[in-house]
Amino acid sequence: MHAPHTAVPTADDAFTRLDNRDGVACLTLARPSSRNSLSERMMAELTTALDQLADDKDVRAIVLAADGPAFSAGHDLKEIQSHRNDSDRGRAYFEDVLRRCATLMTRIVRQPQPVIAAVEGMATAAGCQLVASCDLAVAGADARFCTPGVNIGLFCHTPMVALTRSVGRKHAMEMLLLGDWVKAEEAHRMGLVNRVVPSGEALAGAMDFARQIAAKSRVPVKLGKAAFYTQAEMGLDDAYAYASQVMAENMLARDADEGISAMIGKRQPYWEDR
Amino acid sequence: MHAPHTAVPTADDAFTRLDNRDGVACLTLARPSSRNSLSERMMAELTTALDQLADDKDVRAIVLAADGPAFSAGHDLKEIQSHRNDSDRGRAYFEDVLRRCATLMTRIVRQPQPVIAAVEGMATAAGCQLVASCDLAVAGADARFCTPGVNIGLFCHTPMVALTRSVGRKHAMEMLLLGDWVKAEEAHRMGLVNRVVPSGEALAGAMDFARQIAAKSRVPVKLGKAAFYTQAEMGLDDAYAYASQVMAENMLARDADEGISAMIGKRQPYWEDR
Amino acid sequence: MHAPHTAVPTADDAFTRLDNRDGVACLTLARPSSRNSLSERMMAELTTALDQLADDKDVRAIVLAADGPAFSAGHDLKEIQSHRNDSDRGRAYFEDVLRRCATLMTRIVRQPQPVIAAVEGMATAAGCQLVASCDLAVAGADARFCTPGVNIGLFCHTPMVALTRSVGRKHAMEMLLLGDWVKAEEAHRMGLVNRVVPSGEALAGAMDFARQIAAKSRVPVKLGKAAFYTQAEMGLDDAYAYASQVMAENMLARDADEGISAMIGKRQPYWEDR
Repeated sequence: MHAPHTAVPTADDAFTRLDNRDGVACLTLARPSSRNSLSERMMAELTTALDQLADDKDVRAIVLAADGPAFSAGHDLKEIQSHRNDSDRGRAYFEDVLRRCATLMTRIVRQPQPVIAAVEGMATAAGCQLVASCDLAVAGADARFCTPGVNIGLFCHTPMVALTRSVGRKHAMEMLLLGDWVKAEEAHRMGLVNRVVPSGEALAGAMDFARQIAAKSRVPVKLGKAAFYTQAEMGLDDAYAYASQVMAENMLARDADEGISAMIGKRQPYWEDR
Repeated sequence: MHAPHTAVPTADDAFTRLDNRDGVACLTLARPSSRNSLSERMMAELTTALDQLADDKDVRAIVLAADGPAFSAGHDLKEIQSHRNDSDRGRAYFEDVLRRCATLMTRIVRQPQPVIAAVEGMATAAGCQLVASCDLAVAGADARFCTPGVNIGLFCHTPMVALTRSVGRKHAMEMLLLGDWVKAEEAHRMGLVNRVVPSGEALAGAMDFARQIAAKSRVPVKLGKAAFYTQAEMGLDDAYAYASQVMAENMLARDADEGISAMIGKRQPYWEDR
Repeated sequence: MHAPHTAVPTADDAFTRLDNRDGVACLTLARPSSRNSLSERMMAELTTALDQLADDKDVRAIVLAADGPAFSAGHDLKEIQSHRNDSDRGRAYFEDVLRRCATLMTRIVRQPQPVIAAVEGMATAAGCQLVASCDLAVAGADARFCTPGVNIGLFCHTPMVALTRSVGRKHAMEMLLLGDWVKAEEAHRMGLVNRVVPSGEALAGAMDFARQIAAKSRVPVKLGKAAFYTQAEMGLDDAYAYASQVMAENMLARDADEGISAMIGKRQPYWEDR
């Protein structure tokens, strides 16, 4: 069974908040005064939290939410600017920050549990990248998305990596070259988010997805998510060879035996690995 | 000219039915009592039929249809379970079944003729993979699609290979992680099917596509379909080098000369290779 | 500042027209009597014009437009046919024409400035490929798209390369196998064009996109466009390593410093590199 609700201890001044119950961890960006910008500290807290959740078998799905009117405004530009007077004009710092950011984004992709974004308000630049990097996303009707770097002389090169893997090329180019707002409905149309719900209900919608996933057997979800991104980068024959091997392993797992038997027997499955 | 209507001899207890006339072969999954599940025998019959059609120059397009209320319910789970007591707990069998399944699905992709799915009712798991693997798909308004393996502890790893090459990543992830039904209209919106027609008219719609294709010259269609999937896995420069070579060959073919001459002369082309 | 409006000298019988003002170059296919077919000469003029614009730092965005009722009807089929009596039945010529065509299409993709198609009327075969190859596209409501080679025995193999990188596979296959018209609204739905505007307003819409882009800093747009197509062909980890390196360079550029400072200071940025 799932562990009971864990009140995860966090420092009073933490930038994030973790609420973990019934197999669903809700990781919240809790720095609304800075529009949840992805400062070094915010990225570190998110990455650390995800690293720890990765090892927690009681956590079956993760919701990524945010406090306040903005989901996330992207990188902390004041931090960026503060390094312009470094002896190398900031190069080492910039490279390091971008490495940390890529680590966070690929952490989401490689996370054993599905990660579901709950988006209210704006998700811009690396904030939009967070949404694109999640496996699923639910947006409130007033959510809006933007890769506005081009407006400040700093193209959203790294958000582009996640964005182009979520939406078609002309949609991605339009967002990147114009830097304009994309409303929730349009984000849905282009495939960046799975659902648009009434404003204020994104968290409930994402939690609903998460609870559905948490009720399933753990190992197939973990195997399936990992295989999804791995096979996506392969040619067709390699993808089938690889996915067939993963599926044969999955068939040998106890929960596949139980799940199939339950289906044939028209009863509810009992997942051992809970 | 096309061969006249061929009544293809099939055993009385065949799992499939082949109707071949006027350049269009209609291959039907005819085992409604098992919801056209992709048992070993069903996969073998489909693969054999496609192999034979591959060599039949009179067949210009193939419709893949199904008898009864379900298009296909995917693998035969009772067959899967019957091998759990094998000395290797089924490993060799599972690997073999998945190899046969991948052979069938890539057979469709590599088939010289376009293959068009006509979907009524449910297409689930490997049944959904069949639809995703076809070049085109027409769905009746009540058709519905699902990759529900996750609900029985067996993630749809191999259907995922075909699905992720048809629809956007967040759509594919939603189907795979939640295992919920997707209605025909939503399948159309995400790009899994080309047309939604009134319930019961999917076969007519697919036959209409097939007849249009059958009226065209054979060689360009064959070259084009093969090149489509080959160039899709290449980088841009390689894709252009490859496609340009194929197109130059196509330009040298007699029917290209005839087709262009007919267009310039404002007359109907006469396809020699019929 | 931008150079003032340049009346670009062109031969009286030129197939194209270049109008260059305020940072936006409008390159027009001006051979409506041949439905702007991509004859050798038309391709040569377009490629030469794009080559020259590539070196012009005052040009920040390019609109690709067309005179007359057709955007472009694709290759000049009479030119193709005229080489059937060559000693090699045209092979060397066909290969050469297709090489020139691929050079033009990849020139658009590699062009340092964004290229925006303004489409009224029909864009067929290599004309449709032009639209698919552009970074952005605006279509008048009566624009229509087609890859009809299959109807004349000459599959649109090379247009397929651009088309399959813009739209989903089943959409692309439908266009390529059936050769039917796709209306502007449907092209929008499948992601081939960014906007549908009232008939006759495609040029104004594309110019609006172009002017927005021209008002941004030049270097980030150039870096971003190049990185877009480069990272799209990479696996996720390589893409992040590459894009992070480009972004670090971008952060070190003067306009990024200026742009971020202006944003923090709530003032308009002043782009030095104009």
